[in-house]
Amino acid sequence: MISIEEMQRMVREGVPLAGAWGVEVLAAADGAATLRLPHREDLLRPGGTVSGPALMGLADVAMWAALLSLTSGVDESLTANLSITFLRPPAPRAVIAEARVIKKGRTLSYGEVLLRSEGDEAPCAHVTTSWAAAPRRRA
Amino acid sequence: MISIEEMQRMVREGVPLAGAWGVEVLAAADGAATLRLPHREDLLRPGGTVSGPALMGLADVAMWAALLSLTSGVDESLTANLSITFLRPPAPRAVIAEARVIKKGRTLSYGEVLLRSEGDEAPCAHVTTSWAAAPRRRA
Amino acid sequence: MISIEEMQRMVREGVPLAGAWGVEVLAAADGAATLRLPHREDLLRPGGTVSGPALMGLADVAMWAALLSLTSGVDESLTANLSITFLRPPAPRAVIAEARVIKKGRTLSYGEVLLRSEGDEAPCAHVTTSWAAAPRRRA
Amino acid sequence: MISIEEMQRMVREGVPLAGAWGVEVLAAADGAATLRLPHREDLLRPGGTVSGPALMGLADVAMWAALLSLTSGVDESLTANLSITFLRPPAPRAVIAEARVIKKGRTLSYGEVLLRSEGDEAPCAHVTTSWAAAPRRRA
Repeated sequence: MISIEEMQRMVREGVPLAGAWGVEVLAAADGAATLRLPHREDLLRPGGTVSGPALMGLADVAMWAALLSLTSGVDESLTANLSITFLRPPAPRAVIAEARVIKKGRTLSYGEVLLRSEGDEAPCAHVTTSWAAAPRRRA
Repeated sequence: MISIEEMQRMVREGVPLAGAWGVEVLAAADGAATLRLPHREDLLRPGGTVSGPALMGLADVAMWAALLSLTSGVDESLTANLSITFLRPPAPRAVIAEARVIKKGRTLSYGEVLLRSEGDEAPCAHVTTSWAAAPRRRA
Repeated sequence: MISIEEMQRMVREGVPLAGAWGVEVLAAADGAATLRLPHREDLLRPGGTVSGPALMGLADVAMWAALLSLTSGVDESLTANLSITFLRPPAPRAVIAEARVIKKGRTLSYGEVLLRSEGDEAPCAHVTTSWAAAPRRRA
Repeated sequence: MISIEEMQRMVREGVPLAGAWGVEVLAAADGAATLRLPHREDLLRPGGTVSGPALMGLADVAMWAALLSLTSGVDESLTANLSITFLRPPAPRAVIAEARVIKKGRTLSYGEVLLRSEGDEAPCAHVTTSWAAAPRRRA
C-alpha cells in the first residue's frame, strides 16, 4: 500500500508541470483519488478564472493517482485520450479534482474526473479519460 | 485584418500560461492557424516527451487563433469541450499545432488541431474542440 | 409533471428508431432517467453482442428523457455531441441505460449515461453527451 | 487486395444494422473509405432530418471499412470510443461518410469521419473514433 506522501511525490515527479503548480494529493485509494490545485495567479486567465490547460493538467494527474491506487504505485499506462467539458467558469480559488476508475483493463483503462472550485458543490468541468498500457513506465 | 504579431499578443495575454511557455503564432488566416510551442525543459516528462497538459494548452490557443482569424480578432467564445487523443510520444523538440475551424456557428463553433513534433510528418496528437459563444470576452 | 407513459410515447415518436426497437422508459425524474432496450436478434452483431449503434441510440434517448424530466416534457434542445466508450462486450440480453444530467444550462446542457446488460453490475459502455438549445422542437 | 463488393458484404454482415439500412461501400483503399447511407423514411426524425443513431452507425462502419482497407480485409479490432459532433441538421437525403485512418497502431488505431448530405459540401457531423485490438474477430 502506497502512502499519500509517496503518491504525491510520484505525481509531481511524473508530471513536472503538476509539480511546478504544487498539486496536492488529498486522498487515493481503491481506484478513486482526490487532488487539489492551489490558487496561483499565474494559472488565471484575464477575467479571473482558472486556465483551461491547468484544469486539464490537474485532471490528468488525478486519474493517474486513481490508477496508481489500484496497483500499489506501479503503473505502466499512459493517457490515450482526455476529453474535458467546461461547465461553468472556475472561481479564482483552489480547484478540487475527484477522479474514479470506471474500468481497469489489462490494455485499456477508463475513468472520469469531476472538477470543482474549492467550497463549491457544482462542478466547473467534467473529464473522461482513457489510458493505454505502455511498454515503458511513465514515472 | 489582424496581423500575426497582434494575434500572438492576444493569445499570450488571453491565456497567460501560453504566454509563459512562449507560444508563437506562425500563421493565422481564413479559419486556420499554425502555432509553435518552443522546446522547454520544464514542459518535459521523465523519459523526455512533451507533457500532455502542455500539448492540450497549445491546442487550445491554436484553435482560438483559428477562430480569431475569422473575426478580425474579436471573439467572445470560450472552450466548451476539448478532446485530445495521444497518438505517439512527442519528441523532446518544439511542437507545431495546425488548427482549422470545421464549423463556425453563431452559438457553437467546432474545429480540429493536429499536433506534431517539429520536423516530423506523423502527428503526435489529434484534438477536436467545441467553442460556445459567451456573454463576456475572453481577451 | 409528465407521466412515464407519456415520456415513453415522446421518446418513441421523437426518435422513431428507438420506437422501432421498442425502447422502454422505466423511470424519469429530477434530471435522471432509466431506459431499457429489449433483447432483439436484429440488433446483435456476429459473436452475439449488442451492436454499437444500438447502444448509441439507446444512450441518446436516455439523456433526452433525463432532460425532459427537468422541463415537464418540453425540450427544445438537440444532441450537439455524443461520446461513447465501450468497456466490455454487452451480453445478448436487454440493455439498461442510466442517464443523469450533470449541468442544465440555458444554451448548453451536459450529462452522462451508464449502459449495462440487464442483470450485470459492471457497465458495458459509458457515454457523455452535450445538448444545445435549438430554435425548433425535437418532438 | 479486397474488392469493394467483398468489403460491402463484410460490413453488412459484421454490423447487421448497417446491412438492414442498405449501407453501400463506394470506395475503400489505403486507409480511407467512402460509404453511403441511402435515404430511408424509417431513419428520419420528426422534422425530416436523418436520425443521430443512423449517422453514428454509418460512421462506425465507415471507419471499419477504412481499417479493413489497410489489412486486406482482416481486422481483429473493435470500436473502443466513438465521439460524434453534430454540426447542422442532415437533409432528408442519402448521407455520405468519408473516413480516414489517422493512426494505425498495433493495439490502438484512430481516425476521423466526415458526414455530409449527398450533394452538400458542408459536413453535417464530424466523428473521431478509436479502435482497440481484440482477441476475437469482429466479422
